[in-house]
Amino acid sequence: MPASTKIWNTQATSRAQRLQLARQTLGPALSGKVAQASDAVRLLSAVIASGDRVCLEGNNQKQADFLAKTLTRLNPAQIHDLHMVQSVLALPEHLDVFELGIASKLDFSFSGPQAGRLAKLVAAGQIQIGAIHTYLELFSRYFVDLTPRISLVAAHSADAQGNLYTGPNTEDTPAIVEATAFKSGIVIAQVNELVDKVPRVDIPGDWVDFVIVAPTPNVIEPLFTRDPAQISEIQVLMAMMAIKGIYSEYGVQRLNHGIGFDTAAIELLLPTYAESLGLKGKICKHWALNPHPALIPAIEAGWVESVHSFGSELGMENYVRARPDVFFTGADGALRSNRAFSQAAGHYACDMFIGSTLQIDLNGHSSTATQGRIAGFGGAPNMGADARGRRHATPAWLKAGAQARAGRGGVAAMPRGQKLVVQIVETFREHMQPAFVDTLDAWKLAEQAKMEIPPVMIYGDDLTHILTEEGIANLLLCRSDEEREQAIRGVAGYTPIGLGRDRRMVENLRDRGIIQRAEDLQIDKRDATRDLLAARSMRDLVRASGGLYDPPERFRNW
Amino acid sequence: MPASTKIWNTQATSRAQRLQLARQTLGPALSGKVAQASDAVRLLSAVIASGDRVCLEGNNQKQADFLAKTLTRLNPAQIHDLHMVQSVLALPEHLDVFELGIASKLDFSFSGPQAGRLAKLVAAGQIQIGAIHTYLELFSRYFVDLTPRISLVAAHSADAQGNLYTGPNTEDTPAIVEATAFKSGIVIAQVNELVDKVPRVDIPGDWVDFVIVAPTPNVIEPLFTRDPAQISEIQVLMAMMAIKGIYSEYGVQRLNHGIGFDTAAIELLLPTYAESLGLKGKICKHWALNPHPALIPAIEAGWVESVHSFGSELGMENYVRARPDVFFTGADGALRSNRAFSQAAGHYACDMFIGSTLQIDLNGHSSTATQGRIAGFGGAPNMGADARGRRHATPAWLKAGAQARAGRGGVAAMPRGQKLVVQIVETFREHMQPAFVDTLDAWKLAEQAKMEIPPVMIYGDDLTHILTEEGIANLLLCRSDEEREQAIRGVAGYTPIGLGRDRRMVENLRDRGIIQRAEDLQIDKRDATRDLLAARSMRDLVRASGGLYDPPERFRNW
Repeated sequence: MPASTKIWNTQATSRAQRLQLARQTLGPALSGKVAQASDAVRLLSAVIASGDRVCLEGNNQKQADFLAKTLTRLNPAQIHDLHMVQSVLALPEHLDVFELGIASKLDFSFSGPQAGRLAKLVAAGQIQIGAIHTYLELFSRYFVDLTPRISLVAAHSADAQGNLYTGPNTEDTPAIVEATAFKSGIVIAQVNELVDKVPRVDIPGDWVDFVIVAPTPNVIEPLFTRDPAQISEIQVLMAMMAIKGIYSEYGVQRLNHGIGFDTAAIELLLPTYAESLGLKGKICKHWALNPHPALIPAIEAGWVESVHSFGSELGMENYVRARPDVFFTGADGALRSNRAFSQAAGHYACDMFIGSTLQIDLNGHSSTATQGRIAGFGGAPNMGADARGRRHATPAWLKAGAQARAGRGGVAAMPRGQKLVVQIVETFREHMQPAFVDTLDAWKLAEQAKMEIPPVMIYGDDLTHILTEEGIANLLLCRSDEEREQAIRGVAGYTPIGLGRDRRMVENLRDRGIIQRAEDLQIDKRDATRDLLAARSMRDLVRASGGLYDPPERFRNW
Repeated sequence: MPASTKIWNTQATSRAQRLQLARQTLGPALSGKVAQASDAVRLLSAVIASGDRVCLEGNNQKQADFLAKTLTRLNPAQIHDLHMVQSVLALPEHLDVFELGIASKLDFSFSGPQAGRLAKLVAAGQIQIGAIHTYLELFSRYFVDLTPRISLVAAHSADAQGNLYTGPNTEDTPAIVEATAFKSGIVIAQVNELVDKVPRVDIPGDWVDFVIVAPTPNVIEPLFTRDPAQISEIQVLMAMMAIKGIYSEYGVQRLNHGIGFDTAAIELLLPTYAESLGLKGKICKHWALNPHPALIPAIEAGWVESVHSFGSELGMENYVRARPDVFFTGADGALRSNRAFSQAAGHYACDMFIGSTLQIDLNGHSSTATQGRIAGFGGAPNMGADARGRRHATPAWLKAGAQARAGRGGVAAMPRGQKLVVQIVETFREHMQPAFVDTLDAWKLAEQAKMEIPPVMIYGDDLTHILTEEGIANLLLCRSDEEREQAIRGVAGYTPIGLGRDRRMVENLRDRGIIQRAEDLQIDKRDATRDLLAARSMRDLVRASGGLYDPPERFRNW
C-alpha cells in the first residue's frame, strides 16, 4: 500500500475558509457568533457554495422562515444547484428557491401545503426529487449519504455563545444540527431573541456557528388542534368500534394517533365511553403524540401516564407546563419535543398506529398521493409499519402476531409479535370520493413524476385492520389474497368496491370474526351521539384544562 | 368534568426533595454539581429510592464502572427492587446488584460477557427479566414506558457547570440523558477529569445534576479489533464470494458489517480483490460502522466516503482525527459517535446488513442464544430486519425487492424494495458445532427463562442470503417453504442438515441461480489465499494507517 497522498480534511478546510470569508464580509457588524438580520444575505452568500447540500429547517410546525426568505434572495448566478434536504416543505419560499434557480435537487418527507405546486415544478423539470422519506429515514440519511454542509435552523432564543433554546418546539433541530456540526458543516440559527442566559440549553453553543435575531418570530403552525364541534356522530360510532373492537380487544397501552377528527373522537371518548366499559388503566396509558388538545379530558381523568412528543402545539404551553408528570419537560418547565426520538418511540415502543388515509386498494395498500400532488409521507410509514426489529413482548403485540400466524407452517410458524396498524376511514371522503379504489392514484403519480415505485404510504402487508362506519376488517386473520379482498370489500360500504363484494363470502368472514359490525360488538348505533364526547367544543376543552389551554385565535368562536 | 384534584408534578417534587437531601447529606463537600468520589455512596443513597427505574450506562464499550461499583455498595435494606434499564451487561457489578438484593428487575439489550451468569441468576429467581431488546428499541422505550428516574453515565471530562465531554465514545449517553433529564429524572456522571472548559460539549451541563471524578478512568473495551493474522483462507474465500456474489451483484453502497473475522476479511479485500474487479466507487461507499481497524486499508485506498459510528474503538483515536472527511468528528477533532443515530442509520439508510450467527434453522431463523446463556441481541435485530417504513429507493434495495416479488400476485404484487440481510457463517463453528440445526436452542432457552417467544436474533422472513464456504443461498428467489429449506440445506456442507439435502432439488436451485457456488461466480478457490488480504497482521494495519493507528497492548505482538 503506497503512503497516501490524499487530502483528508477538505470539508474542515472548506468550512474554515467559509467562516473566514463570512467574518471578512460582515466585518465588525458580526459580534462573535451574532450576525445582524440585515447581513443575512451576505452571511449566507459567504458560507454557501453552489452544489451544497443544505438543510433548511422546515418542520411541520416550526419554520426557519426568515432564513428561508433569505435563501430566496441569494444570487442564482453565484449560488445555484443547491441540494435541499429538509423534512417538510411548508412555506412558499421552500419552493421559490427552486423556481429562482438557486436550488435544483430535493430530498424531503412531507409537503402537505405545497404538494400541488411541487408537482408542477417537478413536471416542469425545475426540481429533481431525490426521494420522499418518512421522517426518521431522512434523519438517518443525514448521517450516511445526505449529510448537510449547511443547516439553517430556528430556535426561540440564543445567548452570545450560540446556545439555543427551542422552547417546546424542539422538533427536528437536534438531529439536523448534530449531523451538520459533527461533519465539518456550518450551522446558522435564526432566533426570536438574544438573551444573557437561555432558559435551558436545547442545542449546545459549541454546535452552532452563527445566530441571527430574525425581524419577526418564527412561524409555528397549530396542526394538531381539532375542534370537537366538528366531530360527527358517524365518527363517534367509529370511535366506539375502535375502542371496543380494537383497543380493548388487544389491550393497547402504548400508541400513536393520527391527526384526524376520527382519532380525536377516540381521544374524547376515553373518559366517557371507554370509562363505562371499565377500560381505564387497561388501554391508552403511554403515547407518542404531540400535545393534542383533544387528549386533555383523558389526561384530566387520569387515563394517561406519559406522552412523548414529536413537536408541540400552539396554545398547549401552559397546560403542558402544569402537567410535567405526563409530558417531557425541561428544567424551565416547557416541553422538550424531539421528532427523531418520538418517531423511534412510535416505531419501536408503540403497539399500535391508527390514522386515516385518502385511498385504500383491494390489497389494503393505502396512499395519500393523488394526481397532481406530491404530498409525501411524514411519519406514517415509520409508525404504520411492522417494526420487525422489535423483540420485547406485550399482550397486544403477541396477540396480533399470533392471529397472523395461527395455523401457518414453514417460516411463518415461528412465534413472533406484530404491530397493530389500523386505517380508520369513512367509506366516502370529501366530495363523495370513495376511499376504496381499484387502483391507487399513486400509480399514475409515479408515472408522472418518474418515481421508481408508486408512493404507497402504508403497504397492505403491514396493515392489520381497516375500520369504517360499516365495521372492522381484521386482515391478520385472512389466509389468502381472496379473503383479504373480500374483507376489504366487506367494510367498503356503498362504494363501487363495497358493492362488488361476494355477499356469501363476506357473511362467512363475519361468522369467523374477520369482519365485525357494530352489532357484533354489541354497540347500539343509537348510542353513538355527540353526547358521548368528553368535550363538544373548543370551549369545553379550555374548561377541561382548568383554563390552562389557550387556543389560537382562529379556534376561538366565543 | 369535575375540576381535577390530582397532583401533576410528583416526579418534579420527588426530584427536588432528592436533590435537597443530597445537598444536605453531602454538605460543603458538594461544590455546585461536583461531588467527591468518597461521597458517591452517600450521594446515590440520597437520590435513589427503592423501586426506582435506574439506567446505568453500560455500553458495549464505555462503562460507568465507578458508578456501577458504587451501586453495589448501597444498603439493600434501604434501597432495593431497583429496575435496571441498561443496554449492556458487561461488568460483574452489573449482576452483583441483583445478587446483593439491590435490584430485582432488568430490561436490557446485550449481555455477552455475563450471559452465563445472567442465565443462572434468572433461573435462581434473583432477576426478573422485563425483556431483551435491540438497542434502538430500548432507547425508544426510555421515552415511553421505561423512562429512567436516575441515570448514571460516564464521560471523559466535565466542567463545573456539568457540561460533559465524552470524547469519541459518546455512544448511548445522549439518548439516556435526554430521556432522564426531560422527565424530572436525575443524571449523575462519572468523569475522568474535571476541567475549566471541556474540549467540546457533548451533553449540556443543564441536563446533568452531579459530576464525580472517578478514582480511575472509565473502562473501555476494544471490541471491534480483529487481528488479520487470524483470518483463515476459508474466510478469504467467503469474502470473495460475498464481494462478487452479493456486493457487486446488488451494487451495495451503504452498509453495516458485523464484528467477526469473516466481515473483517471482506473489509481487507476491498482494496485488493474488489479493486481488481473494478468495483471501486461502485460498492461500500457509506458505512454505519464503528471505526474498525480492518477498514483502514480500504479508507486509505479511497474506497470509503463516510463512516458514522455507534461508538469508537481504542487505538483508532489519532487515525480518526486525521480523517475528518470520512468520520464524524467534533470541533476538537475527536470522533462523535452516537448509538441511537447510528442504529437509525443502520436501519433506514443502509441497503445491507451482513453478520454472523451461531445457529440457523431450516426456515432461516437464526439466533446466538444457546442453552444456559442469555446473551441478548445488541444491534442485530434492528439492522438485520427489513426496514418496512423505508421509502427511498436505491438500486440494491429495488433489486432485492423485485427478486422477492417476481411473479407473485395479490398483496405481494405491489413493487417495494427490500433490505439485504446476509448471514455469513462457516458450516461448522468452534468445536465442530454445526451452524445449521433442526431446532434452535432458542426454543429451550425460552422455556428455561420463561420467555413469551423464542429469542430469535434474525427471523427467516427478514433474511435474504446465507453465505457459507459452500456457496450462497439467495432466499429472495425461493417461492415455497420447501425451496427455502433446500436452499439452506444446499449451502450447509457436511453438517447433518447439509447431508439431508434433496440433491436433485438443490441442483435445480443451482440451475436457477438460487444457490451459487464459488465456481458459478467464476471464483477459483486456489486464488483464495491470505495474500489477497490488504493487511495480514496488526503491524500491517498500523503501517497502512501511516502510523496513526495505535493498537491496544494486547494486540501488539511485535
